[in-house]
Amino acid sequence: MEFVKNAIGRMIPTQINGKPVVPYKGVGKYKPEGKKHAPKIYSYADYPSDGNKLVSSLKDALIKAGLKDGMTISTHHHFRNGDLLANQIFDIAKELGVKDLRWFPSASFPCHEHLIQYLEDGTMNRIEASMNGPLGRFCSLGKMKGTAVLRSHGGRYQAVQDGDVKIDIAVIGAACADPFGNANGLYGQSASGLLGFALADSEYADKVIVVTDNMIEFPCIPWQIQGNHVDYTVKMDKIGIPEKIISGTTVITKSPDRLLLAEMTAKFCEVTGIIKDGFSFQSGAGGTSLAVGEYFAQIMKEKGIKARFARGGSNKYLVKMLEEGLVEYILDGQTFDLEGVRSMAENPNHVWTSPFTSYNYHGKGNFAAMVDVAILGATEVDVNFNANVVTHSDGYLLHGIGGWQNCLFSKTVILPIPLFRDRIPVVVDEVTTICGPGELIDVIVTERGIAINPKRTDLIEKAKNSGLPLKTIQELKDEAEKICGKPQKPKTGDKVVAAIKWVDGTVIDVVRQVLD
Amino acid sequence: MEFVKNAIGRMIPTQINGKPVVPYKGVGKYKPEGKKHAPKIYSYADYPSDGNKLVSSLKDALIKAGLKDGMTISTHHHFRNGDLLANQIFDIAKELGVKDLRWFPSASFPCHEHLIQYLEDGTMNRIEASMNGPLGRFCSLGKMKGTAVLRSHGGRYQAVQDGDVKIDIAVIGAACADPFGNANGLYGQSASGLLGFALADSEYADKVIVVTDNMIEFPCIPWQIQGNHVDYTVKMDKIGIPEKIISGTTVITKSPDRLLLAEMTAKFCEVTGIIKDGFSFQSGAGGTSLAVGEYFAQIMKEKGIKARFARGGSNKYLVKMLEEGLVEYILDGQTFDLEGVRSMAENPNHVWTSPFTSYNYHGKGNFAAMVDVAILGATEVDVNFNANVVTHSDGYLLHGIGGWQNCLFSKTVILPIPLFRDRIPVVVDEVTTICGPGELIDVIVTERGIAINPKRTDLIEKAKNSGLPLKTIQELKDEAEKICGKPQKPKTGDKVVAAIKWVDGTVIDVVRQVLD
Repeated sequence: MEFVKNAIGRMIPTQINGKPVVPYKGVGKYKPEGKKHAPKIYSYADYPSDGNKLVSSLKDALIKAGLKDGMTISTHHHFRNGDLLANQIFDIAKELGVKDLRWFPSASFPCHEHLIQYLEDGTMNRIEASMNGPLGRFCSLGKMKGTAVLRSHGGRYQAVQDGDVKIDIAVIGAACADPFGNANGLYGQSASGLLGFALADSEYADKVIVVTDNMIEFPCIPWQIQGNHVDYTVKMDKIGIPEKIISGTTVITKSPDRLLLAEMTAKFCEVTGIIKDGFSFQSGAGGTSLAVGEYFAQIMKEKGIKARFARGGSNKYLVKMLEEGLVEYILDGQTFDLEGVRSMAENPNHVWTSPFTSYNYHGKGNFAAMVDVAILGATEVDVNFNANVVTHSDGYLLHGIGGWQNCLFSKTVILPIPLFRDRIPVVVDEVTTICGPGELIDVIVTERGIAINPKRTDLIEKAKNSGLPLKTIQELKDEAEKICGKPQKPKTGDKVVAAIKWVDGTVIDVVRQVLD
Repeated sequence: MEFVKNAIGRMIPTQINGKPVVPYKGVGKYKPEGKKHAPKIYSYADYPSDGNKLVSSLKDALIKAGLKDGMTISTHHHFRNGDLLANQIFDIAKELGVKDLRWFPSASFPCHEHLIQYLEDGTMNRIEASMNGPLGRFCSLGKMKGTAVLRSHGGRYQAVQDGDVKIDIAVIGAACADPFGNANGLYGQSASGLLGFALADSEYADKVIVVTDNMIEFPCIPWQIQGNHVDYTVKMDKIGIPEKIISGTTVITKSPDRLLLAEMTAKFCEVTGIIKDGFSFQSGAGGTSLAVGEYFAQIMKEKGIKARFARGGSNKYLVKMLEEGLVEYILDGQTFDLEGVRSMAENPNHVWTSPFTSYNYHGKGNFAAMVDVAILGATEVDVNFNANVVTHSDGYLLHGIGGWQNCLFSKTVILPIPLFRDRIPVVVDEVTTICGPGELIDVIVTERGIAINPKRTDLIEKAKNSGLPLKTIQELKDEAEKICGKPQKPKTGDKVVAAIKWVDGTVIDVVRQVLD
């Protein structure tokens, strides 16, 4: 295997899974050539004239869709750890003796540990997606035949749109659908809110199968997935485990450390003038992020101002802000709790979005860039502000990229992170895996001080007399090492087990096999 | 020019505008090969990072979009006869000395008579769209340099999607937009309800310009047109004449003849069991069609049943049915009055659609086929049930196809038409121009009798003891001729002035120059 050094200094193989790769060239430096993937021209005459595309079972649908060796099968992750579909797809593939499949979910979860047997027996060649938990561990140990490829949500849309990944069969689970294939995630026992992660799949896959446990009469409104893209529909008793799809309720952290991070972050946004009338923000559904939102709400109420929009992951706290008029619009990519689902169904200003509108780097812009401030996480940050979200310091690949890379294009990016976790420094000399270049990361908020990227002189100026504990990133790193000691490098071998794509399809880093 | 006979017996040139044509092969007989049009892969890096795509003027936008000789410029017709944009585009083209443009609107109206000068001076080569009124007369007389091409709404989507028509610059007027290019037709002085006719243009055109007289802050919700497809945005004082875009109110016919047609049509649907709980219907916004809807409403109330959905063109009568619970959903392609606009903004069950979802023949089905009964018009019908909607018996091309061809795929198609107009028979031996094949047209309702297509034995059986005046189509024709005399053939020359496309892109008929 040949390697080249990419623009951020990482050694990248020239080929991955037998295909040439483009090494990362810098932010905005790689300009794609060519045309988008062009699906076949279909004919109405080849589809049931009454619009009823219902077939008897998922197996029937997969056979009709022509499932065969070497195909790429896609699914979405709106059912999160409550997904009951993906495992069945590969059970059927195994039963049919199909081999060497590429699984291309928008993310995989611990509930998919069942699939390890198929990675072992050759039913599946590889997973191209984030692997949360057991599958990530399996991959990290070098046991997957093919090389994993991790993409951001926007990068996944880009890869499908650009034809980098050609999906043969997309299987789209939906809480609600009609026999024509119109579908949404809003109504039914498997409600997931929306289905945006399956949009590219529906538009570009050769064959599209919609599976639901709540088949209603045409028209299924809203048609978040349009039946005009769908080949077959399937009715099942149960496609997901509701309490694992959506949490009944999201909970703000009670950890004093995390509350401190949240409060410092909100305070920082206040003193630097980021929180102003008509501003916009994105904050995740993790405990710390939720707390940031709550502190934002307090500040906004005090100042009597409102936000033009919030970018979700939605949850009950964000919904409350919408319904209290603190936020005019929620632009939502995934709902995290039942209140999010309810609000999306009820509030016209709670808008379901897709990675196309929010994140696709190969479109005519996207709206991630219009967000004033994005509050994100990281497993590691280095002294150049480069950050890691996929591997731990021990080298294990245990998390996905999600929309993280895409959100780096927000006007200000803040990472509230602990200075160390389990006595392992989070701010380090060099991150294990670079997922995002430091030039796009503006502020690191830790319990022991806030480091502002030197290129953001505007923020440094605004924050300097605020009383906030400003430090350099080097100072933070030194402090972490003084407490925890110099962190050990992970023990890794030569084998590349996963590639990390940048938002433009270039490779920004790779993950190497962990030596157990 | 060489000609071949197509499957419905019409002589079709082998080339139109220098490109080979596929002659009509029969319903469902032509299977497209190949792939959809693939737009270029764009890069976020080439667009303003703050999402602000505003330029100073329409002229500026057209220059930036690279307007040059021979290009194809598209517009939509949601502003109907109140459009102020299209004329300005070509005024600018003239000013810039650009020649030989193809105008590809979704329809043209009398307000575009201004453009005749540009057809005469070579600024414009031809119009490919329906031409209501003066432009149609100009074209009919053989004065247009190129040959007109008329497509149904679905056929226009199909042509763009398939790459038959490559749009260089799409100009999309919108009642409401944001600087990023998200747009809708719902809010503002130029409200048109929705913008579905511009969907294909936004998705497939090389350059997309959104023009509005109501620029709001991001996000413009709903984003019926997605800014991620848009290159430039333009703010203007006035893009349309409100009272000509949307009628303040639609009015049911008061003509006793037309009311009779409407009543007979509704009665026919009642006795044949078409009106039943959960059925669906499409009825236009013409006086007769509106009256049909009202009779439907009466019958439904009497029977205590409701419709699952109505396919609009929406208007106050349909909105009333929705709001009274007689109709569960309106699937709307264009709003015809202010009540339609209000309802679309307020009622989640009043759904904006596009020619992609409703009509595209080269998709995986479309929902026109799921409509139980479509009530449509025609200028002529012949004894084989073939119908004409574009030319009059004198040969003049004065109307567009609209969604008419697409609606022929409904389960039952009924044409309520007068047996003659101005003492000229409407039921004839052979229609001047075939727009739809008789095999798809089920029932002709005239004031002097109802003719059912012989292939619909089910309807004949159900209607036979209903007391309705059933006749054969031949009997109707004979009766018309007895009263009006044998109609004269139009005086036409050899020159082909327009091609009529079928829903699959084949040519079903052509229109010849009228000898004045």
